[in-house]
Amino acid sequence: MCPPGCLHSICEKATRRGLLKTGFTLGLGAAAAAFPGTPQAQAAPTSFSETVDLSHALYEGFPTFSGEKWFTVEHLVTFAKDKVNLNRWTIVEHSGTHMDAPIHFSADGLTADLIPISDLIVPVAVINIASRAAENADTSLTPDDIKAWEAKNGPLPEGCCVVMNSGWHKLLDDPKFTGNDGEKRNHTPGFHVETAQFLIGERNVKGIGVDTLSLDTGLNSGGAFPVHYEWLGSGRWGVECLANLDAIPEVGARLFLGIPKVRGATGGPTRVIALL
Amino acid sequence: MCPPGCLHSICEKATRRGLLKTGFTLGLGAAAAAFPGTPQAQAAPTSFSETVDLSHALYEGFPTFSGEKWFTVEHLVTFAKDKVNLNRWTIVEHSGTHMDAPIHFSADGLTADLIPISDLIVPVAVINIASRAAENADTSLTPDDIKAWEAKNGPLPEGCCVVMNSGWHKLLDDPKFTGNDGEKRNHTPGFHVETAQFLIGERNVKGIGVDTLSLDTGLNSGGAFPVHYEWLGSGRWGVECLANLDAIPEVGARLFLGIPKVRGATGGPTRVIALL
Ligand SMILES: [Zn+2]
Ligand SMILES: [Zn+2]
Repeated sequence: MCPPGCLHSICEKATRRGLLKTGFTLGLGAAAAAFPGTPQAQAAPTSFSETVDLSHALYEGFPTFSGEKWFTVEHLVTFAKDKVNLNRWTIVEHSGTHMDAPIHFSADGLTADLIPISDLIVPVAVINIASRAAENADTSLTPDDIKAWEAKNGPLPEGCCVVMNSGWHKLLDDPKFTGNDGEKRNHTPGFHVETAQFLIGERNVKGIGVDTLSLDTGLNSGGAFPVHYEWLGSGRWGVECLANLDAIPEVGARLFLGIPKVRGATGGPTRVIALL
Repeated sequence: MCPPGCLHSICEKATRRGLLKTGFTLGLGAAAAAFPGTPQAQAAPTSFSETVDLSHALYEGFPTFSGEKWFTVEHLVTFAKDKVNLNRWTIVEHSGTHMDAPIHFSADGLTADLIPISDLIVPVAVINIASRAAENADTSLTPDDIKAWEAKNGPLPEGCCVVMNSGWHKLLDDPKFTGNDGEKRNHTPGFHVETAQFLIGERNVKGIGVDTLSLDTGLNSGGAFPVHYEWLGSGRWGVECLANLDAIPEVGARLFLGIPKVRGATGGPTRVIALL
């Protein structure tokens, strides 16, 4: 027999739920019941057997809404000449696949280095609005989209990150990625501010994520930024420019958010890996 | 009864080995036997219930051997003035807690973006030479240290990262951290080149890590860099400037290495989190 808290009991629950195939992730609910006194950051044991990279590779000329270069590289020394390769980056914190810390759009929110590491490994709920976004680049993810997802998949996992899959992650090399219309406006999907309010008021969600350049729609990213102010202002974080979202399920995966620990940072280029 | 590959069998093995307390990590060996056909990156299910941050916070003036500033921050806009906080970093890839990609000391090794993500979640073996290093800052981790660790803990886990705990992670604010002697030499512990050769030839190890500024001893980091050439030249990676090493066990934890995915990078500031 196993001691209390053994994986036996979790395994039995998981089997009953039919989650055991090649790999499964334990929901916080089931696991928390079996491990009531688990110490420290993670509330409960997490199990995974596959990993999927959700990060775009960053390069000079990676798209930005304005077209400004936010990332450049200098080769300080090279192996051919100096027998060592070493580069220096000049990088705006919000380049490529990256996190937004609460301080990005608030006076005194948490900086990136102070986000608790328990927030850096969280369940993820993926909400697919790609077919609608293909018809209308200015569409947004609404509270009804959340409710439709829940009707199909059950309640949002506690403490999760809600991710919009707009299909934009496949458009990195397409002018649609920035959706610039030549008149300084950008047409890309994003969260609706009412969705941010709904998730803050009615659900327990740690972060929101998008496969576009902004948590807000492009049209709302020219100055108003209602979702940024609402969401980051509430002390929560965001993640932008996610890649490869079709490779993870709507429910059951976790995100690992590898953000460099930089004092005072408002965000930073982040290695996002899904655990399945 | 559970289907084949259920965690029952792993649980039983883990229980027999006495690994079940508040949390445990499955060794690749045990788990691989139970899940022979597991797809994709991770060879087998991994379970964890605690996380520990092994990253120092990076800041302007973070120590470097030469005393050069490798990291600076510009505040592009501020909330007080502009209602948004946004910074730009100028950063040498090897600042703070960071990874060394094979290309750093080779002509054609892998760049950081191409390191397989299966290499970014690995078991860790921690080898403590702190008492010796306190007596002699120029000491190095030798093949005998590996063998003594194995005599106590069993064989190094397959595909692990071997980490030197020299105690230097506690000296960040002490002049000993760079060990600069005023004559352009640095006195800090590191790996011995014979240890790199031994691990390459006799063991299956993916990475090596240190809590100092260099995989090499400080005295070997002024130009010779034998461990860097040997280890990175073999296609393997390193991780430097690890923090908080006394908080993880000698065996049983895993490292998650959150390195930004930057095309062509020789390394990069990395969020290192231990999974226990
Ligand atoms: Zn951002
Ligand atoms: Zn380095």
